[in-house]
Amino acid sequence: MDFAEVVRRRRMVRAYTDQPVAPAAVRRALDHAHRAPSAGFSQGWAFLLLDDADTVGRFWSATTPAGKGDNAWSRGMRTAPVIVVPLACKRAYLDRYAEPDKGWTDRDESRWPVPYWDVDTGMAALLMLLTAVDEGLGACFFGVPPSQVQALRTEFGVPADHHPIGAVTLGHPAPGGVSRSARRGRRRLDDVVHRGGW
Amino acid sequence: MDFAEVVRRRRMVRAYTDQPVAPAAVRRALDHAHRAPSAGFSQGWAFLLLDDADTVGRFWSATTPAGKGDNAWSRGMRTAPVIVVPLACKRAYLDRYAEPDKGWTDRDESRWPVPYWDVDTGMAALLMLLTAVDEGLGACFFGVPPSQVQALRTEFGVPADHHPIGAVTLGHPAPGGVSRSARRGRRRLDDVVHRGGW
Repeated sequence: MDFAEVVRRRRMVRAYTDQPVAPAAVRRALDHAHRAPSAGFSQGWAFLLLDDADTVGRFWSATTPAGKGDNAWSRGMRTAPVIVVPLACKRAYLDRYAEPDKGWTDRDESRWPVPYWDVDTGMAALLMLLTAVDEGLGACFFGVPPSQVQALRTEFGVPADHHPIGAVTLGHPAPGGVSRSARRGRRRLDDVVHRGGW
Repeated sequence: MDFAEVVRRRRMVRAYTDQPVAPAAVRRALDHAHRAPSAGFSQGWAFLLLDDADTVGRFWSATTPAGKGDNAWSRGMRTAPVIVVPLACKRAYLDRYAEPDKGWTDRDESRWPVPYWDVDTGMAALLMLLTAVDEGLGACFFGVPPSQVQALRTEFGVPADHHPIGAVTLGHPAPGGVSRSARRGRRRLDDVVHRGGW
């Protein structure tokens, strides 16, 4: 699909049909994700792929706070056949920038204007969302509650230096309404662009 | 251009020709940027557009630490005719999630698993990088040193609650070498994907 068309069509899909997702489409989403840019080409990321009912079910068990799973959002999202958890590894960035060509051997995090480990991994997540559109699929990016991160790590053996920046559901879109957030409307371009200064 | 081709062709371009960039191409990059996803559709971002020699020159003066401008990277990057500074506004996210449908009225930042204000604005930056490829242009995303953020704010009247997550240069690519970082090589997909667990 044409690039601009992919960008225009992308939206969060929060309910899915029971049609399975072609493994090749998932592979392309992951391939694109790992082509995201990264500071110093650190590539400090990993992608936990959950693509069967067992692992997907265990994801929801681990990440749903007690008493919070019975709502429309959860019921819709749990229909997704595939979940990818993009994880950021800050340690890989500090290692990379301690190398001679960068020279930040003190590994001081105050040198970093923003946490590029999270930002770059977010870019990888966006490439999955866009690839879903290109593949005729739907996807949704959402956060893992901080209270559940340790349970997620334990369930899937995630190393302690890898932090989930959220998760991406993938599947064939089921008909559904527009979220409350989307009803807020998009800000006008001229309201967010400041030419030459404020 | 086909979406997958855009993803495959994207790379950081650190030197530009003196050919001007069509304003319509810059506009499309900004239009795509403001179509990035955002948590709760907060859209807590702004884009400072610098598209003439005066404002671009003032950007480099404000953001280059004393004694640091005389190197190959700076000489190449200063040839870019256009710079867009994507800024994240955390306050807009805390405001959005204090609304009744979210209910985080305590505005407690520990509720946020990662700083989505930075992550979402990074996604907007990636959409500019990809649009540059689609438009036959080159682009580079890079950080603004923390020591220079206040000078940047003062120079362009940026509100105190807007934080630059970096900056994006745009222009027609000049021939150039491969960066030291790129020579590291891309990690193999099978090394970063963990199916079903570690």
